[in-house]
Amino acid sequence: MPGQRLITLTTDFGLVEHYVGAMKGVIASINPSVQIVDITNSVQSYDILDGAIAISQAYSYFPADTIHTVVVDPGVGSARRPIVAKIGVHVFVAPDNGVLSLVYEREESISVRHITSEHYFRQPVSSTFHGRDIFAPVAAYLSKGVELDKFGEEISDYVRFVAPKPKPSGANAWKGVVLKIDKFGNLITNITPKDIPQLFQPAPPAFKIVVGKAEITKLTPNYAAGVQGEIFALLGSTGFLEISVNRGSAARAAVADKGAEVSLTLSQF
Amino acid sequence: MPGQRLITLTTDFGLVEHYVGAMKGVIASINPSVQIVDITNSVQSYDILDGAIAISQAYSYFPADTIHTVVVDPGVGSARRPIVAKIGVHVFVAPDNGVLSLVYEREESISVRHITSEHYFRQPVSSTFHGRDIFAPVAAYLSKGVELDKFGEEISDYVRFVAPKPKPSGANAWKGVVLKIDKFGNLITNITPKDIPQLFQPAPPAFKIVVGKAEITKLTPNYAAGVQGEIFALLGSTGFLEISVNRGSAARAAVADKGAEVSLTLSQF
Amino acid sequence: MPGQRLITLTTDFGLVEHYVGAMKGVIASINPSVQIVDITNSVQSYDILDGAIAISQAYSYFPADTIHTVVVDPGVGSARRPIVAKIGVHVFVAPDNGVLSLVYEREESISVRHITSEHYFRQPVSSTFHGRDIFAPVAAYLSKGVELDKFGEEISDYVRFVAPKPKPSGANAWKGVVLKIDKFGNLITNITPKDIPQLFQPAPPAFKIVVGKAEITKLTPNYAAGVQGEIFALLGSTGFLEISVNRGSAARAAVADKGAEVSLTLSQF
Repeated sequence: MPGQRLITLTTDFGLVEHYVGAMKGVIASINPSVQIVDITNSVQSYDILDGAIAISQAYSYFPADTIHTVVVDPGVGSARRPIVAKIGVHVFVAPDNGVLSLVYEREESISVRHITSEHYFRQPVSSTFHGRDIFAPVAAYLSKGVELDKFGEEISDYVRFVAPKPKPSGANAWKGVVLKIDKFGNLITNITPKDIPQLFQPAPPAFKIVVGKAEITKLTPNYAAGVQGEIFALLGSTGFLEISVNRGSAARAAVADKGAEVSLTLSQF
Repeated sequence: MPGQRLITLTTDFGLVEHYVGAMKGVIASINPSVQIVDITNSVQSYDILDGAIAISQAYSYFPADTIHTVVVDPGVGSARRPIVAKIGVHVFVAPDNGVLSLVYEREESISVRHITSEHYFRQPVSSTFHGRDIFAPVAAYLSKGVELDKFGEEISDYVRFVAPKPKPSGANAWKGVVLKIDKFGNLITNITPKDIPQLFQPAPPAFKIVVGKAEITKLTPNYAAGVQGEIFALLGSTGFLEISVNRGSAARAAVADKGAEVSLTLSQF
Repeated sequence: MPGQRLITLTTDFGLVEHYVGAMKGVIASINPSVQIVDITNSVQSYDILDGAIAISQAYSYFPADTIHTVVVDPGVGSARRPIVAKIGVHVFVAPDNGVLSLVYEREESISVRHITSEHYFRQPVSSTFHGRDIFAPVAAYLSKGVELDKFGEEISDYVRFVAPKPKPSGANAWKGVVLKIDKFGNLITNITPKDIPQLFQPAPPAFKIVVGKAEITKLTPNYAAGVQGEIFALLGSTGFLEISVNRGSAARAAVADKGAEVSLTLSQF
């Protein structure tokens, strides 16, 4: 039953204008029975890394063969290629600008194709809204069972960036960065248990994190374990170290924004 | 046809990050054909009363047997219990923190169970995102027809708070509160026809309401009946007394915020 | 299969409160299998022109027979009529306040009916939320196959306004207006190729546009063709001339808001 495959949307088009509505109309016109699920349409405008984080955090929870449409596309209308990719057991439709980089990073099996079969596009193709004219119709035809190889040739030189990783900055010291701030004001850093395993072991050493105006020396298992008002660290559901405040905003407490430096020092032990 | 039951979402996860998308992915992985409807994912962060108002205002419009997933959960990862409740003809999945209080208030038949059957959870269960790991999969299994008693034992000591009610403050005088401010700037108070029936009778007595910097002495049947720019009261679609401005923001006109005191005095008659 | 017809929503109810959720519940109670697609629920509060732009930009991408529910309704509860309209191959349910004006403008076949069959309404009908009590149930019954003529008599005096058009202001000079600003900060003007064809021909003459504090003398085919930081004009996917900045906000660069005047002068040639 190919009509039962889901299509997801991850875009920076926002929910105020008609852009996402137009994409859904195009999809429904090609495959009226397909279900469309928004992952988010509020990626920061033009911010490819922010889109890459969003799709990489959500895609794996969907059923195999879900078609993930990812449109953060500041280069729309330029030479950048539209691509369709089979990555692990999921399918992705996106501009070839690196927005799938963090998905590539998590999967072993990757096959990327340059979409060139223009008869699957909405005509005429505008030069400013490929979400509506290219990515939505390609996703819809995929959901109807059109095979991946019908859309174009496989390529190996697709754009792929490496997400910023924390760097050692001395003995037992690292510098990381705030990747994003969520609705709750949690500072989501780029530090993972793979980078600094000793911090996440059952009895971690004493540590000090400095971000913005805040110093953090406490690691809790969950938000509620923090004393109200206190700022602390925890391993978030994203797999990244977060800086948080129980029932409050760590971003406000630390006066720190996206991109802020995160200095971490472990006690010698 | 259990696959036809709807699942609704009422959360404070917002629409910017991937959180709601991840929950929908988990649901779709368990029951790909179920329809998911957002009531709102913009409950104020950590605000259990705000979530309680949202779900209590919307659930009854859905078909019988709809599964309402309500996740405003500042205590995630702590000892607070996850619950599944049959309340009237609807089913609810939520943390046991009072977020269903205003639904309990509106229905007579209430059966609440502590969810303990961990084989219905997504594994491993994180300590910070039970929306994804507990509430979403439980809702999905419910939509596939798993019976309520399979999730855990019935409990009677579930958390239930009483919504703030207007209080008499003198002869023919009451003090209420602004429960919330909506997108239009309407001040939704906690005053209902049950509290002060004489105000809502066909020929009500003269009255004065003071909220913020505004004095209101006029009750209109609808927004358009107000003179443009004038501030007035009406019985809103929520069942609560609202303070409004025709094509304008009462919140701005009154310089009043959520939680503001509402003083009401009726003329003697 | 009438149950396969889509229902779309275009409203100013926002995504924070329960309003849209209540409408979806009412629809699902009448037709549980219908799919509902949001075009946008973030039309500016009370702004009929903003709603008219949103629906006119999106409806045509949906399949024939889609039921478009458009509720921007500052006159709710007053004498303004609820209408159902067959316009081209689409069906619309809306208040009769002009919110369909830009759709009327784009189609030749128009049949508008005053909805008077109250047995299709949710009872009791509130005087402040016809989205829930009138428009949602009418849309749901339409999706179940109830014929248009069952809802009321055809009328010809429906409300229809003319969208603001650019006006000549001298030899080779026009004054237009900023219709709206999108999430990216693009200024969407009311100037189209029909108004000033010479500007959009393959080799256009030199021109100067003044809007806010900005002077624009460059027309590009797409956003990425602009030098980063530079302000330029292009023909947007909406069919209107846009003022834009590559990876930036033209609204911020020009210090211009919705409603700002747009002065355009072509060089003589």
